[in-house]
Amino acid sequence: MSEGRILTGKRRHVLDLDDFGTEELEEIFTQADAMAEILTRPIRQVPTLRGVTVVNAFYESSTRTRISFEQAAKALSANVVNFTAQTSAVVKGESLVDTVRTLEALGCDIVVMRHSMSGAPYLVAKHFRGAVINAGDGQHAHPTQGLLDIYTMRRHFGHVAGLRVTIIGDILHSRVARSNLWGLTKLGAQVTLCGPPTLLGPAGYWEALFPTVRLSYCLEEAVAGADVVMMLRLQKERQESGLLPTLREYTRLFGMTMERLALAAPHALVMHPGPMNEGVEIDPDVARCAQSVIEEQVTNGVAVRMALLYIVAGQRSGA
Amino acid sequence: MSEGRILTGKRRHVLDLDDFGTEELEEIFTQADAMAEILTRPIRQVPTLRGVTVVNAFYESSTRTRISFEQAAKALSANVVNFTAQTSAVVKGESLVDTVRTLEALGCDIVVMRHSMSGAPYLVAKHFRGAVINAGDGQHAHPTQGLLDIYTMRRHFGHVAGLRVTIIGDILHSRVARSNLWGLTKLGAQVTLCGPPTLLGPAGYWEALFPTVRLSYCLEEAVAGADVVMMLRLQKERQESGLLPTLREYTRLFGMTMERLALAAPHALVMHPGPMNEGVEIDPDVARCAQSVIEEQVTNGVAVRMALLYIVAGQRSGA
Amino acid sequence: MSEGRILTGKRRHVLDLDDFGTEELEEIFTQADAMAEILTRPIRQVPTLRGVTVVNAFYESSTRTRISFEQAAKALSANVVNFTAQTSAVVKGESLVDTVRTLEALGCDIVVMRHSMSGAPYLVAKHFRGAVINAGDGQHAHPTQGLLDIYTMRRHFGHVAGLRVTIIGDILHSRVARSNLWGLTKLGAQVTLCGPPTLLGPAGYWEALFPTVRLSYCLEEAVAGADVVMMLRLQKERQESGLLPTLREYTRLFGMTMERLALAAPHALVMHPGPMNEGVEIDPDVARCAQSVIEEQVTNGVAVRMALLYIVAGQRSGA
Repeated sequence: MSEGRILTGKRRHVLDLDDFGTEELEEIFTQADAMAEILTRPIRQVPTLRGVTVVNAFYESSTRTRISFEQAAKALSANVVNFTAQTSAVVKGESLVDTVRTLEALGCDIVVMRHSMSGAPYLVAKHFRGAVINAGDGQHAHPTQGLLDIYTMRRHFGHVAGLRVTIIGDILHSRVARSNLWGLTKLGAQVTLCGPPTLLGPAGYWEALFPTVRLSYCLEEAVAGADVVMMLRLQKERQESGLLPTLREYTRLFGMTMERLALAAPHALVMHPGPMNEGVEIDPDVARCAQSVIEEQVTNGVAVRMALLYIVAGQRSGA
Repeated sequence: MSEGRILTGKRRHVLDLDDFGTEELEEIFTQADAMAEILTRPIRQVPTLRGVTVVNAFYESSTRTRISFEQAAKALSANVVNFTAQTSAVVKGESLVDTVRTLEALGCDIVVMRHSMSGAPYLVAKHFRGAVINAGDGQHAHPTQGLLDIYTMRRHFGHVAGLRVTIIGDILHSRVARSNLWGLTKLGAQVTLCGPPTLLGPAGYWEALFPTVRLSYCLEEAVAGADVVMMLRLQKERQESGLLPTLREYTRLFGMTMERLALAAPHALVMHPGPMNEGVEIDPDVARCAQSVIEEQVTNGVAVRMALLYIVAGQRSGA
Repeated sequence: MSEGRILTGKRRHVLDLDDFGTEELEEIFTQADAMAEILTRPIRQVPTLRGVTVVNAFYESSTRTRISFEQAAKALSANVVNFTAQTSAVVKGESLVDTVRTLEALGCDIVVMRHSMSGAPYLVAKHFRGAVINAGDGQHAHPTQGLLDIYTMRRHFGHVAGLRVTIIGDILHSRVARSNLWGLTKLGAQVTLCGPPTLLGPAGYWEALFPTVRLSYCLEEAVAGADVVMMLRLQKERQESGLLPTLREYTRLFGMTMERLALAAPHALVMHPGPMNEGVEIDPDVARCAQSVIEEQVTNGVAVRMALLYIVAGQRSGA
């Protein structure tokens, strides 16, 4: 793979993108390029992580993300152990700590964790001598999704700096938006957030964290001239909790259509972290148009996760 | 395995046996013979499908069939990803299509699908660039069960043409019966269907599809001289839905006993797709008698599924 | 691993420790030492059981024990098939027998079974031509836990004979205590059982089975001078069923604290089969003190289970 190359990173956990520097992000993308090449071979499997155990600890179900990590780990010949748990059974922080201590004692090297509580992977990382990769925690972070999104942009444009990226939807509750924001702003992209006021947050909130970010309540304005248009999944529960009048109104104002997409740059990419609510935040035509890279995001996710597993496993064993 | 042999088939999906020709069926059985030999070796594993990912997508639970495919895939060194889902979560056809597109983007090569909706694997096959194997869809088809049943007959008799096969039970709701009918009639077996009128269907129904088939409401008549006697599992819900007066009456009229089995040919095989309701459609003595090949069916299922995985994987990559 | 070494044992099933002799126990521990060495290598995987299928048949959920067996099997390159089932779906003994016959026909070699009904693995062993390992059945036995506990003591003290082992808690309902008792008394340890009368059983009960055992209702007395102090998990349902007045009273009388631990020998080991109810049967300080080997028990469990899988697999194939 990376014959004889010495990794410079000291990365042990992947919890969010806030503590990644631009150099490290570039290193991950270069590593992901090498992994993507492996995935094009007739036999898409290398022995790199033989004997390493990756645990998919999913306290919140996600077939897509779990299988992506499983594919990534198996392509590197790691052993994969799956376990799912009801959050209700592990309400106490202590239990979670006990569980990861047990996983460590069982010889598990890398814990890939999805949890409905923001911060759960941080707690785990404090008590686990191996590596922890956050596969989505509450409304907090989803760093591997952020990385695969940015990696997809980089593959298409060759760079991230200067890209005009518009993210549309329920920004306030989105871990995907947060992780993208950390990565994109570090790499010099110009991010615009767009959605109804109730889903975008109070004035000044995002600008305090990310000084270069722009906000817009108007889809047409936000999309104009964009290089990347990223829709977020609209959780239907937002309507029930009173943050949205109706789905129909949301779709009328913020649903992406071919007409609205035409306002973006001609080469603009259409992205979505999936699973999509087609007909709500994205029109089926847009989801399948020539500019859509939604399936490519999924494929790139396997390569990016291979790169991350490889990097954190290297820290583990010094191998 | 099949040293240097070039596969003649162009088979990509296994959805039902209606579109299989006699030559292709024979080819599968020959391939299954080679796979069965592998399963008798001290180390029952060959590297044939290394790097290939098989997804067991079970939208209806079935430990038996899932493990059979898992064993088959692992014996060929494929990677196996299991996922189960409640059909309720995927009521919309769109969702199913999205799921398989995602599986494809994740690098999954073969989808083995069980679904409670008849036709679901056809929908999936239309949108998936890899291979789809139907592991049972609604009341429609169960082609791998049909193939393993016919393969078991062929191993015992050396041929299928001319065999007198009697299938007894809830024919009308049985995907097992349907798939057996397609395969058996193509290969020239003489099939008799037997059961109470409410579970056998209206006059002329089966004869229209399979001109050589015979129907009988009388077990003794149907079994007389048969080479194969196949009982189907009686779903207890049939009684609740008013199609059966009582289980006891069903057993009295259509339950297989040693006395009734004695009416068949002396060499007659006893078959059942499992799991059995012992004491309902089959007496425990019959299930375990010397003529019973019920466990052999299970074992043959692994070899037949290995053959199918091998054939469709070959189509996939041209390897 | 054990190059050219011929195994002397004839062990096919591991159902409880009552039928293990001292020589066989020593042989298992020696084998476990060899396995523990494998687990310290950079690549913790040997090809010993390639092509062998181990089924984790868990009719009662246990992430910890299931993953331990999964790790053990994969370290030996066996194929692992997981399946969980609700006991309610298999109320009839017949169903269980059918299931294992099917597993056998599917080519499964070793069934690792956890079941809420005492005796279930015995029933299975009668009908399965492969090997059965009991991973905990009802309140009856948990032999692999017993073995890993005793193995942990042996690694620390170099011997088991003469060790003063105090087991504290709900002895009456504990399969862990039972299996430890069989193994420890055979190897000449001096076992003291301690707990409230309602959880210790009627006078004479344990002495009839294990003549050398001592009973005590007083924690301080039971712990005095002990080499090993083992706490059992207190099932909170015991309170609901009227066997315990309050958890608080249990903790006051039988909860292990650093003060009480000071009564034991200075070198005394603290053990717990997990998962712990910290603050109930064990104080968090005790769980994490220098004398605690609770995490080491978990690690040793993988080595002991590797040894058992290796031994029973050897019986299976004569390999």
